[in-house]
Amino acid sequence: MTDMKVDSVKDYMAHIGIKARAASRLIAAAPTATKNNALLAIAQELDKSRITLVAENQKDLAAGKANGLDSAMLDRLTLKPATIDAMIEGLRQVAALPDPCGEITDMSYRPTGIQVGKMRVPLGVVGIIYESRPNVTIDAASLCLKSGNAAILRGGSEAIHSNRAIAHCLQAGLKAVGLPREVVQVIETTDRAAVGELITMPQYVDVIVPRGGKGLIERISSEAKVPVIKHLDGICHVYIDATADLEKALVIAINAKTHRYGVCNAMETLLVQEQVAPAILPRLAAAYAEKEVELRGCAKTCALIDAKPATEEDWSTEYLAPILSIKLVAGLDEAIEHINRYSSQHTDAIVTENYTLARRFITEVDSSSVMVNASTRFADGFEYGLGAEIGISTDKIHARGPVGLEGLTSQKWVVFGDGHVRK
Amino acid sequence: MTDMKVDSVKDYMAHIGIKARAASRLIAAAPTATKNNALLAIAQELDKSRITLVAENQKDLAAGKANGLDSAMLDRLTLKPATIDAMIEGLRQVAALPDPCGEITDMSYRPTGIQVGKMRVPLGVVGIIYESRPNVTIDAASLCLKSGNAAILRGGSEAIHSNRAIAHCLQAGLKAVGLPREVVQVIETTDRAAVGELITMPQYVDVIVPRGGKGLIERISSEAKVPVIKHLDGICHVYIDATADLEKALVIAINAKTHRYGVCNAMETLLVQEQVAPAILPRLAAAYAEKEVELRGCAKTCALIDAKPATEEDWSTEYLAPILSIKLVAGLDEAIEHINRYSSQHTDAIVTENYTLARRFITEVDSSSVMVNASTRFADGFEYGLGAEIGISTDKIHARGPVGLEGLTSQKWVVFGDGHVRK
Repeated sequence: MTDMKVDSVKDYMAHIGIKARAASRLIAAAPTATKNNALLAIAQELDKSRITLVAENQKDLAAGKANGLDSAMLDRLTLKPATIDAMIEGLRQVAALPDPCGEITDMSYRPTGIQVGKMRVPLGVVGIIYESRPNVTIDAASLCLKSGNAAILRGGSEAIHSNRAIAHCLQAGLKAVGLPREVVQVIETTDRAAVGELITMPQYVDVIVPRGGKGLIERISSEAKVPVIKHLDGICHVYIDATADLEKALVIAINAKTHRYGVCNAMETLLVQEQVAPAILPRLAAAYAEKEVELRGCAKTCALIDAKPATEEDWSTEYLAPILSIKLVAGLDEAIEHINRYSSQHTDAIVTENYTLARRFITEVDSSSVMVNASTRFADGFEYGLGAEIGISTDKIHARGPVGLEGLTSQKWVVFGDGHVRK
Repeated sequence: MTDMKVDSVKDYMAHIGIKARAASRLIAAAPTATKNNALLAIAQELDKSRITLVAENQKDLAAGKANGLDSAMLDRLTLKPATIDAMIEGLRQVAALPDPCGEITDMSYRPTGIQVGKMRVPLGVVGIIYESRPNVTIDAASLCLKSGNAAILRGGSEAIHSNRAIAHCLQAGLKAVGLPREVVQVIETTDRAAVGELITMPQYVDVIVPRGGKGLIERISSEAKVPVIKHLDGICHVYIDATADLEKALVIAINAKTHRYGVCNAMETLLVQEQVAPAILPRLAAAYAEKEVELRGCAKTCALIDAKPATEEDWSTEYLAPILSIKLVAGLDEAIEHINRYSSQHTDAIVTENYTLARRFITEVDSSSVMVNASTRFADGFEYGLGAEIGISTDKIHARGPVGLEGLTSQKWVVFGDGHVRK
């Protein structure tokens, strides 16, 4: 398959698209119990196939080493027993979530006598494009299945053997409960043209969810003819106002930066009101020094603590590393101005005890999550109670912030009448 | 302005985009009362400017006649006193609607102790592209303003004088309440390149709403780099099952076809269960004959009533005219199969007294509105209680079916803590 010609990739993808569209009608109508049983059956198949999964994964790892993949990539590519455990546990958790499909809300009588409401329905066919983390195959497939969508999955070529083995488990699980195997299809060619086709077949694919680095997502977004649920960068801010409880400010600013470094909801820039800076910055600097976080500050910051001078580029950099930029500001107005200019509109937090400032911050900061007196690290589908997460949308259209099952659905209008006609 | 070079159109549009983005922050933060007062002030300006509006409109009409516009186009282009009345009344109605912005929903405590909810917020900048109906300028501007968005309006070049005069009223109204005039900008060049720029400036424009014929919308959708709220065709069906109350079926099938012909929610195909056809079709045929509706039927239909034979093309045609295609089907399965194949997923209705069939129809038909025992003509923002309508979306992403103020908004997550950090 890897030596397919472009024309046959086009045919192959159209074939996959047609089957996905047909399967989407069946999975949309499938009862909740059937979907849950399929998830549990897939979990069972994974458990039964541990030896095969690891053996196939070894092929990918060997090829990866031969091709000079770095150790971080090899680590993400590895199917450890614990990774397989987590995949199985994830399937069981998704099976336990409420089914979003069919929920009818806002049903009310109109003056004409008709009853109007909205019913939650699957989007149809979801295309997921991801890099070389084979566990994403199961994550993505389970969320699509539970939300009643057919899925077309395209993982990184480095994981092709692992993904084929996982696909085998997916399809055995679907078959076990009488669902067609086309409900979840894994693209079996590593030809890059397949992605180009997937993102330009609106007749077969309703939405694309790219999971991976910013480069991948930007490339897909710019070429797609299908809507894309984007997850771009997270340049998150914490603003410590003069009215902050400094003990809260301290734990929040430490947690937001140092709880994990390589995640999108980690703080990248700390803003501190200048009058309160002498009281809080030295304490924070000591805590960051202990964790070996490199500090880069504005001139006023550097006058107070030991920090490298920050450049203009720092304010718009997602470090994903133990590096923090710090800027002193005159107050809320300057903080909001800075955030609305440099934030990636992912997650921004204020620390304050002042009611009016808190109210202004949550209203005027235009980010997918706005927080008062809480760590930006909470911006996460599990922490928000979505039960699962297919990504964090930095878009405003359709789904914003953490996207769970609901983000993979739409609504249709339902009208009940009794022979009603329009006057 | 009409002889701008492409480079200067690009500059002109970027300039408009930058101003819109800045204005969007101000209108997003504007109090409800200010937005309502602006709407009422614009209404007052229109009322004061009737003579100017009609005079400017005459210039467009004269040019339109000289350029050979047909009478339907000239009719849509004309600003009659009643059209101006309706624009004024529309502004007052939008002022009276609840403000969607700032609404906080689903606020609840999570096990960690943080409180999480969602706040409704404007999208930012909305671009509206429409044909030569100057009243759309006011409709679109009022909905964008009320939902806290900045608007960039691009009307048909045939209405340029009328639109400039209306823009003048819009900006006078905004100024009267202290809002910047850039909250609503009307593109003053008739150069087509301006549309090309507008739909490819995601840095300045958050969503495009095209209002007009299918050709316009398809062209814009295929070229846009900004999300588009699409309103494509309405091939709507009514299915009369054997279990229908025939009196209800009769009034619904007549109303859905003959209440108005040129609208997207009119029925274009009638499906009738074959056993009940002899009892209902002749009565319907008589009623349609009285209204001079041309009937095109499948072979079985033509054996029962006087109708032209329908071709394959008829099933996928939006007539927008006194023409109806009729097909007899064996039952619900065939009806749903036909609808899911040929419907444009706009609005489809079943007439039945059977609970199970009604339940299956609303679940299995994948259209933006599904109805039981009601006329498809109800698929409308006003009838559904949205208070106003910027269009009817045939998309599944973001907004589906009639789109009111809420469709011009997004939601952000709000998190309240008390020094909470992630464990």
